[in-house]
Amino acid sequence: MSAAAAVAADGVDVACRAAADAAAGYADATVEVRSALLNDIADRLDGDSDALVSLADEETHLGAGRLAGEVLRTTGQLRAFAELISGASGVVVDQPPGFPELRRYVVPLGPVAVFAASNFPFAFSVAGGDTASALAAGCPVVVKAHPGHPALSRRTAGHVADAVRAAGLPAGVFGLVEGFHSGPALVQHPAIAAVGFTGSLAGGRALFELAAARPDPIPFYGELGSVNPVYVTREAARTRLREIATGFAGSFTLGVGQFCTKPGIVFVPDGDAFASAVADALDGRDAAPMLNERILNGYQRLASRFGGHPGVTTVLDGSAEPGGVTPSLYVTDLETFERDVDSLGEERFGPSALVVGYDDVRRLPEAARAIGGTLTSSVHAESGRDEGLHPLVAEATRQSGRLVWNGWPTGVAVSPAMTHGGPYPASTAAGTTSVGTAAIDRFRRPVTFQGFPPEAIPPSAGPA
Amino acid sequence: MSAAAAVAADGVDVACRAAADAAAGYADATVEVRSALLNDIADRLDGDSDALVSLADEETHLGAGRLAGEVLRTTGQLRAFAELISGASGVVVDQPPGFPELRRYVVPLGPVAVFAASNFPFAFSVAGGDTASALAAGCPVVVKAHPGHPALSRRTAGHVADAVRAAGLPAGVFGLVEGFHSGPALVQHPAIAAVGFTGSLAGGRALFELAAARPDPIPFYGELGSVNPVYVTREAARTRLREIATGFAGSFTLGVGQFCTKPGIVFVPDGDAFASAVADALDGRDAAPMLNERILNGYQRLASRFGGHPGVTTVLDGSAEPGGVTPSLYVTDLETFERDVDSLGEERFGPSALVVGYDDVRRLPEAARAIGGTLTSSVHAESGRDEGLHPLVAEATRQSGRLVWNGWPTGVAVSPAMTHGGPYPASTAAGTTSVGTAAIDRFRRPVTFQGFPPEAIPPSAGPA
Repeated sequence: MSAAAAVAADGVDVACRAAADAAAGYADATVEVRSALLNDIADRLDGDSDALVSLADEETHLGAGRLAGEVLRTTGQLRAFAELISGASGVVVDQPPGFPELRRYVVPLGPVAVFAASNFPFAFSVAGGDTASALAAGCPVVVKAHPGHPALSRRTAGHVADAVRAAGLPAGVFGLVEGFHSGPALVQHPAIAAVGFTGSLAGGRALFELAAARPDPIPFYGELGSVNPVYVTREAARTRLREIATGFAGSFTLGVGQFCTKPGIVFVPDGDAFASAVADALDGRDAAPMLNERILNGYQRLASRFGGHPGVTTVLDGSAEPGGVTPSLYVTDLETFERDVDSLGEERFGPSALVVGYDDVRRLPEAARAIGGTLTSSVHAESGRDEGLHPLVAEATRQSGRLVWNGWPTGVAVSPAMTHGGPYPASTAAGTTSVGTAAIDRFRRPVTFQGFPPEAIPPSAGPA
Repeated sequence: MSAAAAVAADGVDVACRAAADAAAGYADATVEVRSALLNDIADRLDGDSDALVSLADEETHLGAGRLAGEVLRTTGQLRAFAELISGASGVVVDQPPGFPELRRYVVPLGPVAVFAASNFPFAFSVAGGDTASALAAGCPVVVKAHPGHPALSRRTAGHVADAVRAAGLPAGVFGLVEGFHSGPALVQHPAIAAVGFTGSLAGGRALFELAAARPDPIPFYGELGSVNPVYVTREAARTRLREIATGFAGSFTLGVGQFCTKPGIVFVPDGDAFASAVADALDGRDAAPMLNERILNGYQRLASRFGGHPGVTTVLDGSAEPGGVTPSLYVTDLETFERDVDSLGEERFGPSALVVGYDDVRRLPEAARAIGGTLTSSVHAESGRDEGLHPLVAEATRQSGRLVWNGWPTGVAVSPAMTHGGPYPASTAAGTTSVGTAAIDRFRRPVTFQGFPPEAIPPSAGPA
C-alpha cells in the first residue's frame, strides 16, 4: 500500500467505525426522528442556497440558474423521503394454516457508502438521492466526496453534520471522506453494508468487483453509463422533422451534455436532413465550459475519434473552441453503425451526438440490442401504430429502465413511479432505481417475525 | 477445457439458446397463459405423485410420508404463483408537475438458471420455488439438476416440458441440464439473466463470483448456508426446560437434520441439564440414512472434529451407526464457543447440534454477531420482557431473515409474509426471499413508461 493509500485507509477507517458505532442507535430511531433529520438537512441547505450555489458554480461552471434549481430538487428529494417514511404502512401480515402469525417488516442494512458524482454537485452528491434514501432507511452514511467540487462537498457535509448533531444523534450517522484511494478502502471496509455509486464505467466496475470479492459480498448499486438512444419513426420524421430536431438539439446539449440521461444517438430515416435541422437549431450557440479537465479531454478524444472515422461525417465540430466547447454532431448510416457499434455506440459525455440514418425500421431492434443496457430509450412516433414500432419498443424495453414517448430523457422526475436504472451498464442492479422514492428499498431488507409478541419486536424493524 | 467440460458446455449452450429464443414470446404471453402453465404443471405432478414419491424415496431415502408432503407443498407453491400473477394490480402511476404521466410496470429479466438442491427433491428442485417464481415472472428456466436424484429430475422435467408443450409455448421455456461442469457454463452463458441457487457455501460462492465477473454481471440469488441459532432465556429454561429440549430434539433431527433451517446451536443457561434432557428425548431413535455419501462423509468429519475438540463434551455420537446415522449432540460453554467460533459456529448438515451453556445473557448479542448471517434465529422466552432479551433480539434481527418466537425454524410457510433469506451467507442477496410469493420479485425489474399511449406499451410489461 502506498503512503497516500494508507492515509486514505486511516480516514476511511475512522469514518466507518464511527458509522458502525452509530448504526444500532440510528436504526432504532423513530421515523419522527429520521424524518425530522431529513427535513432539517433540507432547511439548512435551502437557507444557505446562495452561498452553496456560488461555491458550486466556481467549482463546476454549471451556471447559477441550473444549480439553484438543483438545490431545490435536492431539498425536495430529502423532504419526499421524510414524507415517505412518515406515511409508511407496509407491514405484510398473514397466518398460514398451521403457523403462528407472520409479520414482515423492513430493517436497515447498516452503514452505506455513497460515491458522489461530478455532474450533479447537489442531487447526486453529498446530500443527494443516495444519502437521502439511505438515511431515510435508517442507515448511517459515509460519502466519498467527488474531487470536482471539494469545497462545496465540505460545506454541504457541514450542514448535514450540524443537522445530525441538532437531532441529538451520534456524529457517526454521517461522515465524509476524500481522495482517490478512499474509494476502494471504503468499499472493502467491514462496517460498510451497501454502496451507492454514480460515475464512470471503468471506476464503477472496479469498485463493483471489490464489493463482490469481500468475505461478505455487499450490494453495489452503481449507475455506470448510458447512451440513451432516440428512435424516430418514418411517420414522425415526415410530419415534424424540424420540431424533433430542435427538441433533440436542446436535450443533448442541456447542461453541456453532462447528464447521465443525455441522448447520444438518434435513429432517423433521413440522417442528413435531420442532422442539418439539428445544426440549424444550434446555430450561434456560445461555447460553454465543461465540468473539469478530465471530462473535457474525454470529449475531445471522442471528437477526434468520430471526426477521423471513415464512415462518419462531421456536421459540427465544437471540440476546440476557446473558453469551452460548442456542440459536436456527426452523421452516419445504420450499416456503418452496426459494423462498429463497440466504438460508435459508446456513451459520449458532453454535447456530442450521432445521427444514424436508417432505411428499414425492421432493423432497429437489432441496433437497440447491440447498444445494450441504457437508462432510457425515447421514441418519437405519430401514433402507437406506426410501422415497425412494436418490435422496436419491445426490444427497447428489454434494454431500458425508462421509455419516453415523444419527449426527451433529460429531466428525471423524483416520484414514486420513476425508474432510474436498467440493464447493465446502466445499473449494476437492474431491479432497482436510484431516483424516486423506491430508491429507499436498496438500503433495507425484509425480516419476518413469526409469532412474536409486539413488545419483543425491536424498534429497528418498521413498515416499508 | 476438459472433454467433459466441453460436452457439458455444449448441452448448456443448446438449452440456453433455446431459452433465449423463447424469451421474447414467453415474456409477451398473457398472465392467463402463464398461470395456466403453472397450474398445469401442478396438476401433472399431483397426478403422478405416487410414482414421483417412490422414485424420490429410492434416490434420497427421505421417506414416502415426508416426500408426499413435499409434493403437495411444491404444487401448492406453483398454484400460489399462478394465483398471484392472476390477481396482480401493482402499476405505480403518477404525474409529477411538468411531466407527462409516468406508469411503472415490471418486465421479466430473461432466461433464469436454477440450481436444484439435494435436500428438497421437489420444493427446491426442478419444479420448485425458483422455477415456479421465474416462470410466473415470465422468464424461461434452465434447471441444473442435482446429481442426488437424477431419475426424479428427469421425470419431473418431463412433466414441466409436457405442460409447456400443451400450452403451445416454445420448448425453450423450460430446459434441464446435468453434470458438474454444466454449473459454471450455465452461470457464464450470455443468454442467462439471473441465477437461483440453493446449496453449499463453497460451490455457491464460486458460482456467485462467476456471475459477478461476467462482462454483464447478473444477479445471483444464492442460499449458501445457515446455522439457525436458538436462544433460551433463563426464565424460559426455568419454567419449561424439558418441553423446549423435546422441541429442539425434534427440530434438529427432522428430515435427518438435512434442512437449511435446521437449528444447529442452542444457547441455554445450564448446558449440561439441557443436553441431558435433549438426549432423553432422543432415546431409542432409530438410525436413518442420509441423502448421499458426500453428505454422510461431511457429517462424520464434523463429528470427529467436535468429538476431538478439547472444550467440547460429546453427549451423543451417532455418526457411525450401521444403516445410517443417529443424532449427535455436543455441549460446551460460551467462552469455548467464542474462542473458536469459526469452527464451532459452522453450519452442520445432518442431525447434529451443539448446546452452549451461558452465565450472562448480556454476552449473547456478541455471540450472535460472531455467528453472522443466518436464515433464522429462534428465541424461547417467557415474555417480551425477559432479562437481556431486547439487545439479544436486536442483534439477532441484524443477522437474520426470520425470527421465531417460542417455536422452531424448521417448517417454512409459503406465504406472502415469509422471508427465507438474510445476511450473507444465508443469502447472497439479503433483500430478497426464495420462499413465499415475494420470491417472484427476484426475476423481474421495473420499467417506467413516460407519456406512452396504452397501445404502444409492449405486452411483456405487466403489473407487479
